[in-house]
Amino acid sequence: MNEDIRKYIVEFIGTFFLVFTVGATAAFGVPGVIAPLAIGFVLMVMVYAGGFISGGHYNPAVSLAAVVRGALSAKQWVPYAAFQFLGGVVAAYLVNFMAGGAQHSAPIPYDLVNIIIAEFLFTFALCYVVLLTATSKKTEGNCYYGLAIGSTVMVGAFAVGSICLGAFNPAVALSTIILGLACCAKLAWLTILVNLIGGLAAGLVFKCVNKEE
Amino acid sequence: MNEDIRKYIVEFIGTFFLVFTVGATAAFGVPGVIAPLAIGFVLMVMVYAGGFISGGHYNPAVSLAAVVRGALSAKQWVPYAAFQFLGGVVAAYLVNFMAGGAQHSAPIPYDLVNIIIAEFLFTFALCYVVLLTATSKKTEGNCYYGLAIGSTVMVGAFAVGSICLGAFNPAVALSTIILGLACCAKLAWLTILVNLIGGLAAGLVFKCVNKEE
Amino acid sequence: MNEDIRKYIVEFIGTFFLVFTVGATAAFGVPGVIAPLAIGFVLMVMVYAGGFISGGHYNPAVSLAAVVRGALSAKQWVPYAAFQFLGGVVAAYLVNFMAGGAQHSAPIPYDLVNIIIAEFLFTFALCYVVLLTATSKKTEGNCYYGLAIGSTVMVGAFAVGSICLGAFNPAVALSTIILGLACCAKLAWLTILVNLIGGLAAGLVFKCVNKEE
Amino acid sequence: MNEDIRKYIVEFIGTFFLVFTVGATAAFGVPGVIAPLAIGFVLMVMVYAGGFISGGHYNPAVSLAAVVRGALSAKQWVPYAAFQFLGGVVAAYLVNFMAGGAQHSAPIPYDLVNIIIAEFLFTFALCYVVLLTATSKKTEGNCYYGLAIGSTVMVGAFAVGSICLGAFNPAVALSTIILGLACCAKLAWLTILVNLIGGLAAGLVFKCVNKEE
Repeated sequence: MNEDIRKYIVEFIGTFFLVFTVGATAAFGVPGVIAPLAIGFVLMVMVYAGGFISGGHYNPAVSLAAVVRGALSAKQWVPYAAFQFLGGVVAAYLVNFMAGGAQHSAPIPYDLVNIIIAEFLFTFALCYVVLLTATSKKTEGNCYYGLAIGSTVMVGAFAVGSICLGAFNPAVALSTIILGLACCAKLAWLTILVNLIGGLAAGLVFKCVNKEE
Repeated sequence: MNEDIRKYIVEFIGTFFLVFTVGATAAFGVPGVIAPLAIGFVLMVMVYAGGFISGGHYNPAVSLAAVVRGALSAKQWVPYAAFQFLGGVVAAYLVNFMAGGAQHSAPIPYDLVNIIIAEFLFTFALCYVVLLTATSKKTEGNCYYGLAIGSTVMVGAFAVGSICLGAFNPAVALSTIILGLACCAKLAWLTILVNLIGGLAAGLVFKCVNKEE
Repeated sequence: MNEDIRKYIVEFIGTFFLVFTVGATAAFGVPGVIAPLAIGFVLMVMVYAGGFISGGHYNPAVSLAAVVRGALSAKQWVPYAAFQFLGGVVAAYLVNFMAGGAQHSAPIPYDLVNIIIAEFLFTFALCYVVLLTATSKKTEGNCYYGLAIGSTVMVGAFAVGSICLGAFNPAVALSTIILGLACCAKLAWLTILVNLIGGLAAGLVFKCVNKEE
Repeated sequence: MNEDIRKYIVEFIGTFFLVFTVGATAAFGVPGVIAPLAIGFVLMVMVYAGGFISGGHYNPAVSLAAVVRGALSAKQWVPYAAFQFLGGVVAAYLVNFMAGGAQHSAPIPYDLVNIIIAEFLFTFALCYVVLLTATSKKTEGNCYYGLAIGSTVMVGAFAVGSICLGAFNPAVALSTIILGLACCAKLAWLTILVNLIGGLAAGLVFKCVNKEE
């Protein structure tokens, strides 16, 4: 099978399970306190499983940061993001099918500035951690990258999950519209934009702090 | 001692502790929120302890996936599965002895389609993670396989534990009949079948996405 | 400084923090659900910190299993156990001093057979995991031994912590008398005996399942 | 970019996210039981991300212990601590901005002796773990140092977080004044002093128990 197709399948599977876990913990899962643990750990698991094939991004903002850093070619960003969005969308519709419909989160009062800051900060942290633990020559061959990457999302969900979507990932943000977890579509689109900017920023900061040779 | 016998003892011990933890957290343990953590981590621990001897499957669906992938010979599947089922059954009866009888879970209304989807998805994920982290040449010698494998079960139990048995493992599914955690035996037999299909599917997908040499 | 003294200091420090965490989570800590997490992780941390110096036992039953396996000389068992007990006792008195006295656990009805089974099983599991992950030639140089060892205690505490002392460690069992967590001293002495038998059994099983040329 | 500046940026970013998580879990986060998990894991993540650049201290007491051990030059302590304090202060003001003001913790009755003992013990443990897992030649190249370091803070927060600030870090202690989590500034200053003494003590104990060559 073609090398690229293998990567896209892995990105599809990983993002599918990430979004399925987001949706299922909301629809069938234990109360909110535990959801971030499940979500962080499913990302960890999928990063460890598929990282050596596709890089284990499962997140268009991470793929963007990888482009900035030079770990992914720019023209690969489009299929990577496409398969990530597709994996998320399929997972979201499957959860809805199983739950007999989308969630109906009560529209909570939210603060746009807080959403922007919170989604930016933890998408930045996530991409910063991905680049430093999974793409830096100095840490090559380490065993902790998956744990570090998954845990960053878990921490973000614990810290700011109540004041923003807690997506830190455009594919997750998009799927929250389908799942009924975003109070409105505009909020999800804003989140997607902020997530991409966070990934971009992390790519630039990485280039400052990481010196190769 | 014979090489094979050593493997069977290790598979027996690992599955025993996995099922004992499933039963004990239900019978004596903390409320349900924590059980998936204990169950995921006991699997992790046993994978790390016995993985280098027997492969650390503790799960006939994982052993089936290993056969498909070529990591276990087909004729070894029967004794592997036998010792796994035996370990689970012994653990289940021991928990019942200690608890003064089986649990009497109220029969919850369940949805057959959801059970099939949920058990399939996370058994697939578990076997996909096992094959990629513990049998792929590209990740040989890594230290994270046990964490990834155990965490997959934990995530599955958090995400869909309330809409299916949350077994992802025929040996666990069988033992839930003895433990009184399955509302009826038919449900457990269906789960066993779905788990094996999940393992089979993961073996095939692994062959697509993993390229050796 | 003498090589042996360094080992004893490390065993003292590790057992001190293990028992301090047991006592402090009971006296000042969060409700019971979280205590096993803290206790398992403090053991993990101390194993990683001191393992390369003293072996990171912090537990006379583990040291006994190490003697059976040949990883610790028999005559070192006495000073190891002495410093472990000492670390635990000092920690227990310090917690009592800080808390203004020992805990007064209501004497819960307990079942002697269950205590013996539960303490035996998880001390066996702990020592089995220690020997296979931290002393087997086949897994030498791995990075997961501390995680596996600490998690075994966490799982045991979640699974059977409500039907026995949940010590799996004679030094912890002894300290529960001082801390007021054991309903009576006899229970602690029985636990110590069962823990040592569990360590012995694990040493023997290890010799069966682990083949070194 | 200058080697030193890169280190300071990494120390700033890591301490920023550590203190942001402390503040955000208090202001927007889930109830207290989960905060130590988030705080311990964000430290782990940042240690793994930046450890190979700056050492990943994010804590003036850890930097002091590193000076005693000879892993950081004495004249680097001042800029390290300055960027750590700065990262913490910026994070604290940002949380306050997002939360519409500082927290108003009810002044709890506290015991000075307990605060001193508790902050000393776990700062000591933290620095002891950092030095043994991240600076000892015998454990060079290991993958567990971040997990061990972050978990030490998590354990400390679970064990004694209710009887002291649970900072174990002067930069965190200072930021609790801004965040309104310290009942008074004097308590934070005392904590800072005790934390530094804990780091000093760990540096000295490390020299006793760790033998190089």
